[in-house]
Amino acid sequence: MPTDPSYLRKFSCFQDLSEDQSEAVAQLTTAICFPLGHLLFEEGKPAEHLYLLAKGDVEVLYKIGDEGPVRVDIVSGEEVVGCAALVPPYVNTATVRSLSEIEVLALDANDLRKLMKEDCSLGFSIQQQIMRMLLDRITNFRLEG
Amino acid sequence: MPTDPSYLRKFSCFQDLSEDQSEAVAQLTTAICFPLGHLLFEEGKPAEHLYLLAKGDVEVLYKIGDEGPVRVDIVSGEEVVGCAALVPPYVNTATVRSLSEIEVLALDANDLRKLMKEDCSLGFSIQQQIMRMLLDRITNFRLEG
Repeated sequence: MPTDPSYLRKFSCFQDLSEDQSEAVAQLTTAICFPLGHLLFEEGKPAEHLYLLAKGDVEVLYKIGDEGPVRVDIVSGEEVVGCAALVPPYVNTATVRSLSEIEVLALDANDLRKLMKEDCSLGFSIQQQIMRMLLDRITNFRLEG
Repeated sequence: MPTDPSYLRKFSCFQDLSEDQSEAVAQLTTAICFPLGHLLFEEGKPAEHLYLLAKGDVEVLYKIGDEGPVRVDIVSGEEVVGCAALVPPYVNTATVRSLSEIEVLALDANDLRKLMKEDCSLGFSIQQQIMRMLLDRITNFRLEG
Protein backbone atom coordinates (compact mmCIF):
# COMPACT_ATOMS: atom_id res chain seq x y z
CA MET A 1 0.00 0.00 0.00
CA PRO A 2 1.49 3.41 -0.93
CA THR A 3 2.68 5.65 1.90
CA ASP A 4 1.38 9.06 2.95
CA PRO A 5 3.55 11.67 1.11
CA SER A 6 3.69 13.93 4.19
CA TYR A 7 5.21 11.04 6.20
CA LEU A 8 7.82 10.60 3.48
CA ARG A 9 8.88 14.25 3.71
CA LYS A 10 9.82 13.77 7.36
CA PHE A 11 12.96 12.01 6.11
CA SER A 12 15.69 14.47 5.21
CA CYS A 13 16.38 12.90 1.82
CA PHE A 14 12.82 13.70 0.70
CA GLN A 15 12.31 17.03 2.45
CA ASP A 16 13.06 19.14 -0.62
CA LEU A 17 10.58 17.39 -2.93
CA SER A 18 7.52 19.17 -4.26
CA GLU A 19 4.06 17.81 -3.45
CA ASP A 20 3.79 16.09 -6.83
CA GLN A 21 7.23 14.56 -6.45
CA SER A 22 6.51 13.25 -2.93
CA GLU A 23 3.25 11.83 -4.25
CA ALA A 24 5.13 9.98 -7.03
CA VAL A 25 7.72 8.59 -4.60
CA ALA A 26 4.99 7.62 -2.13
CA GLN A 27 3.41 5.46 -4.84
CA LEU A 28 6.43 3.17 -4.86
CA THR A 29 6.93 3.15 -1.08
CA THR A 30 5.57 0.62 1.40
CA ALA A 31 5.64 0.89 5.21
CA ILE A 32 6.58 -2.46 6.77
CA CYS A 33 7.46 -3.78 10.23
CA PHE A 34 9.96 -6.61 10.61
CA PRO A 35 10.84 -8.68 13.68
CA LEU A 36 14.33 -8.97 15.22
CA GLY A 37 16.73 -10.98 13.04
CA HIS A 38 15.08 -10.17 9.71
CA LEU A 39 17.47 -10.04 6.75
CA LEU A 40 16.77 -6.82 4.83
CA PHE A 41 19.30 -7.59 2.11
CA GLU A 42 22.44 -9.58 1.40
CA GLU A 43 25.95 -8.60 0.24
CA GLY A 44 26.56 -9.33 -3.44
CA LYS A 45 22.86 -9.60 -4.36
CA PRO A 46 21.01 -7.11 -6.62
CA ALA A 47 19.89 -4.06 -4.61
CA GLU A 48 16.12 -4.16 -4.97
CA HIS A 49 15.06 -1.70 -2.30
CA LEU A 50 16.15 1.52 -0.65
CA TYR A 51 15.06 1.48 3.01
CA LEU A 52 14.23 4.39 5.25
CA LEU A 53 14.68 3.16 8.79
CA ALA A 54 11.89 4.80 10.80
CA LYS A 55 12.30 2.91 14.08
CA GLY A 56 14.75 0.40 15.52
CA ASP A 57 18.31 -0.71 14.86
CA VAL A 58 19.98 -2.74 12.13
CA GLU A 59 23.45 -4.28 11.92
CA VAL A 60 25.70 -4.03 8.86
CA LEU A 61 27.77 -7.14 8.09
CA TYR A 62 30.55 -7.88 5.61
CA LYS A 63 32.11 -11.14 4.51
CA ILE A 64 35.77 -10.69 5.43
CA GLY A 65 38.22 -13.22 3.99
CA ASP A 66 36.88 -16.77 4.41
CA GLU A 67 34.78 -15.82 7.40
CA GLY A 68 31.01 -15.59 7.28
CA PRO A 69 29.43 -12.13 7.63
CA VAL A 70 30.99 -10.05 10.44
CA ARG A 71 29.25 -7.06 12.05
CA VAL A 72 31.07 -3.84 11.18
CA ASP A 73 28.48 -1.20 12.01
CA ILE A 74 25.10 -0.50 13.60
CA VAL A 75 22.63 1.96 12.08
CA SER A 76 19.83 3.43 14.20
CA GLY A 77 17.08 5.98 14.09
CA GLU A 78 15.93 7.85 11.02
CA GLU A 79 18.53 6.72 8.53
CA VAL A 80 18.66 5.53 4.93
CA VAL A 81 19.88 1.98 4.39
CA GLY A 82 20.77 0.36 1.07
CA CYS A 83 22.19 3.33 -0.86
CA ALA A 84 23.89 0.90 -3.28
CA ALA A 85 20.41 0.67 -4.84
CA LEU A 86 21.05 4.13 -6.33
CA VAL A 87 24.57 3.58 -7.68
CA PRO A 88 25.54 1.33 -10.61
CA PRO A 89 25.98 -1.67 -10.67
CA TYR A 90 23.13 -1.65 -8.09
CA VAL A 91 24.55 -4.54 -6.04
CA ASN A 92 24.43 -4.62 -2.22
CA THR A 93 27.88 -3.99 -0.77
CA ALA A 94 26.87 -5.32 2.67
CA THR A 95 24.37 -7.54 4.46
CA VAL A 96 21.87 -5.77 6.71
CA ARG A 97 19.81 -7.45 9.45
CA SER A 98 17.47 -6.08 12.10
CA LEU A 99 18.75 -5.96 15.69
CA SER A 100 15.31 -5.18 17.08
CA GLU A 101 11.76 -4.95 15.84
CA ILE A 102 12.05 -2.33 13.08
CA GLU A 103 9.74 -0.11 11.11
CA VAL A 104 10.89 0.78 7.59
CA LEU A 105 9.69 2.45 4.45
CA ALA A 106 10.73 0.19 1.56
CA LEU A 107 11.14 1.92 -1.81
CA ASP A 108 11.19 -0.23 -4.92
CA ALA A 109 14.65 0.50 -6.33
CA ASN A 110 13.84 -0.20 -9.97
CA ASP A 111 10.86 2.14 -9.94
CA LEU A 112 12.77 4.78 -7.95
CA ARG A 113 15.72 4.74 -10.37
CA LYS A 114 13.29 5.08 -13.29
CA LEU A 115 11.51 7.98 -11.61
CA MET A 116 14.80 9.74 -10.75
CA LYS A 117 15.90 9.46 -14.37
CA GLU A 118 12.60 10.70 -15.78
CA ASP A 119 12.29 13.59 -13.32
CA CYS A 120 15.82 14.89 -13.22
CA SER A 121 15.20 17.56 -10.59
CA LEU A 122 13.74 14.90 -8.29
CA GLY A 123 16.73 12.63 -8.95
CA PHE A 124 19.17 15.45 -8.36
CA SER A 125 17.50 16.47 -5.10
CA ILE A 126 17.43 12.93 -3.66
CA GLN A 127 21.07 12.36 -4.66
CA GLN A 128 22.10 15.59 -3.01
CA GLN A 129 20.45 14.70 0.29
CA ILE A 130 21.99 11.23 0.22
CA MET A 131 25.42 12.76 -0.45
CA ARG A 132 24.91 14.98 2.62
CA MET A 133 24.03 11.91 4.69
CA LEU A 134 27.06 9.97 3.43
CA LEU A 135 29.36 12.93 4.15
CA ASP A 136 27.95 13.10 7.70
CA ARG A 137 28.62 9.39 8.16
CA ILE A 138 32.21 9.85 6.96
CA THR A 139 32.66 12.73 9.44
CA ASN A 140 31.40 10.45 12.22
CA PHE A 141 33.80 7.66 11.24
CA ARG A 142 36.70 10.12 11.15
CA LEU A 143 35.85 11.53 14.56
CA GLU A 144 35.43 8.08 16.10
CA GLY A 145 38.66 6.80 14.50
CA MET B 1 44.02 27.66 -18.09
CA PRO B 2 41.29 25.07 -18.85
CA THR B 3 42.26 21.40 -18.62
CA ASP B 4 42.33 18.78 -21.37
CA PRO B 5 38.89 17.03 -21.32
CA SER B 6 40.46 13.61 -21.89
CA TYR B 7 42.59 14.06 -18.74
CA LEU B 8 39.44 14.91 -16.81
CA ARG B 9 37.76 11.67 -17.86
CA LYS B 10 40.54 9.65 -16.22
CA PHE B 11 38.87 10.48 -12.91
CA SER B 12 36.03 8.08 -12.14
CA CYS B 13 33.59 10.87 -11.28
CA PHE B 14 33.84 12.23 -14.83
CA GLN B 15 34.21 9.00 -16.76
CA ASP B 16 30.56 8.82 -17.84
CA LEU B 17 30.41 12.32 -19.31
CA SER B 18 29.92 12.91 -23.03
CA GLU B 19 32.57 14.79 -24.99
CA ASP B 20 30.59 18.02 -24.85
CA GLN B 21 30.03 17.63 -21.13
CA SER B 22 33.72 16.97 -20.41
CA GLU B 23 34.56 19.99 -22.54
CA ALA B 24 32.21 22.16 -20.46
CA VAL B 25 33.66 20.88 -17.16
CA ALA B 26 37.22 21.28 -18.47
CA GLN B 27 36.50 24.99 -19.05
CA LEU B 28 36.09 25.54 -15.31
CA THR B 29 38.98 23.31 -14.27
CA THR B 30 42.58 24.36 -13.61
CA ALA B 31 45.57 22.05 -13.08
CA ILE B 32 47.75 23.33 -10.22
CA CYS B 33 50.73 22.08 -8.20
CA PHE B 34 51.09 23.02 -4.55
CA PRO B 35 54.04 22.56 -2.19
CA LEU B 36 53.97 20.59 1.09
CA GLY B 37 51.95 22.34 3.81
CA HIS B 38 49.59 24.20 1.45
CA LEU B 39 46.11 24.81 2.87
CA LEU B 40 43.57 23.72 0.23
CA PHE B 41 40.57 24.81 2.28
CA GLU B 42 39.45 25.47 5.84
CA GLU B 43 36.66 24.03 8.00
CA GLY B 44 33.65 26.34 8.30
CA LYS B 45 34.55 28.47 5.25
CA PRO B 46 32.52 28.58 2.00
CA ALA B 47 33.46 25.64 -0.25
CA GLU B 48 34.78 27.37 -3.36
CA HIS B 49 36.47 24.47 -5.13
CA LEU B 50 36.11 20.77 -5.72
CA TYR B 51 39.59 19.21 -5.99
CA LEU B 52 40.64 16.13 -7.89
CA LEU B 53 43.84 14.96 -6.27
CA ALA B 54 46.01 13.70 -9.12
CA LYS B 55 49.25 13.13 -7.23
CA GLY B 56 50.41 13.29 -3.61
CA ASP B 57 48.80 13.10 -0.18
CA VAL B 58 46.64 15.46 1.85
CA GLU B 59 45.62 15.40 5.50
CA VAL B 60 42.07 16.02 6.72
CA LEU B 61 41.76 17.94 9.98
CA TYR B 62 38.86 18.78 12.28
CA LYS B 63 38.54 21.20 15.13
CA ILE B 64 37.59 18.97 18.06
CA GLY B 65 36.36 20.70 21.22
CA ASP B 66 38.64 23.60 22.13
CA GLU B 67 41.63 22.08 20.38
CA GLY B 68 43.02 23.39 17.12
CA PRO B 69 42.62 21.27 13.99
CA VAL B 70 43.47 17.58 14.60
CA ARG B 71 44.37 15.15 11.81
CA VAL B 72 41.64 12.52 11.41
CA ASP B 73 42.39 11.10 7.98
CA ILE B 74 44.84 11.04 5.07
CA VAL B 75 43.67 10.99 1.45
CA SER B 76 46.02 9.81 -1.30
CA GLY B 77 46.10 9.04 -4.99
CA GLU B 78 43.34 9.77 -7.45
CA GLU B 79 40.64 10.97 -5.11
CA VAL B 80 38.09 13.75 -4.92
CA VAL B 81 38.51 16.22 -2.06
CA GLY B 82 36.03 18.90 -1.00
CA CYS B 83 32.71 17.21 -1.77
CA ALA B 84 30.96 19.68 0.55
CA ALA B 85 31.25 22.06 -2.43
CA LEU B 86 28.41 20.09 -4.04
CA VAL B 87 26.03 19.82 -1.09
CA PRO B 88 24.09 22.72 0.49
CA PRO B 89 24.99 24.82 2.46
CA TYR B 90 28.33 24.50 0.54
CA VAL B 91 30.50 24.98 3.62
CA ASN B 92 33.72 22.99 4.18
CA THR B 93 33.23 20.39 6.91
CA ALA B 94 36.99 19.91 7.38
CA THR B 95 40.36 21.54 6.82
CA VAL B 96 42.58 19.95 4.16
CA ARG B 97 46.34 20.51 3.83
CA SER B 98 48.97 18.93 1.58
CA LEU B 99 51.34 16.39 3.16
CA SER B 100 53.63 16.37 0.12
CA GLU B 101 53.98 18.25 -3.11
CA ILE B 102 50.60 17.70 -4.74
CA GLU B 103 49.08 18.01 -8.19
CA VAL B 104 45.36 18.81 -8.30
CA LEU B 105 42.65 19.76 -10.70
CA ALA B 106 40.71 22.60 -9.09
CA LEU B 107 37.10 23.01 -10.25
CA ASP B 108 35.37 26.31 -9.55
CA ALA B 109 32.49 25.20 -7.34
CA ASN B 110 30.11 28.03 -8.23
CA ASP B 111 30.47 27.41 -11.94
CA LEU B 112 30.29 23.63 -11.49
CA ARG B 113 27.08 23.85 -9.44
CA LYS B 114 25.58 26.12 -12.09
CA LEU B 115 26.56 23.74 -14.87
CA MET B 116 25.20 20.71 -12.98
CA LYS B 117 21.89 22.47 -12.51
CA GLU B 118 21.64 23.58 -16.14
CA ASP B 119 22.65 20.18 -17.56
CA CYS B 120 20.73 17.82 -15.32
CA SER B 121 22.11 14.62 -16.87
CA LEU B 122 25.65 15.90 -16.23
CA GLY B 123 24.71 16.74 -12.64
CA PHE B 124 23.08 13.36 -12.12
CA SER B 125 26.09 11.51 -13.53
CA ILE B 126 28.66 13.38 -11.42
CA GLN B 127 26.59 12.95 -8.26
CA GLN B 128 26.17 9.24 -8.92
CA GLN B 129 29.92 8.76 -9.18
CA ILE B 130 30.53 10.81 -6.07
CA MET B 131 27.97 8.71 -4.17
CA ARG B 132 29.88 5.60 -5.30
CA MET B 133 33.13 7.08 -4.03
CA LEU B 134 31.58 8.07 -0.67
CA LEU B 135 30.07 4.58 -0.28
CA ASP B 136 33.50 3.06 -0.95
CA ARG B 137 35.06 5.30 1.69
CA ILE B 138 32.39 4.23 4.19
CA THR B 139 33.13 0.57 3.39
CA ASN B 140 36.83 1.22 4.06
CA PHE B 141 36.10 2.91 7.39
CA ARG B 142 33.86 0.02 8.40
CA LEU B 143 36.46 -2.57 7.49
CA GLU B 144 39.25 -0.67 9.28
CA GLY B 145 37.10 -0.11 12.38
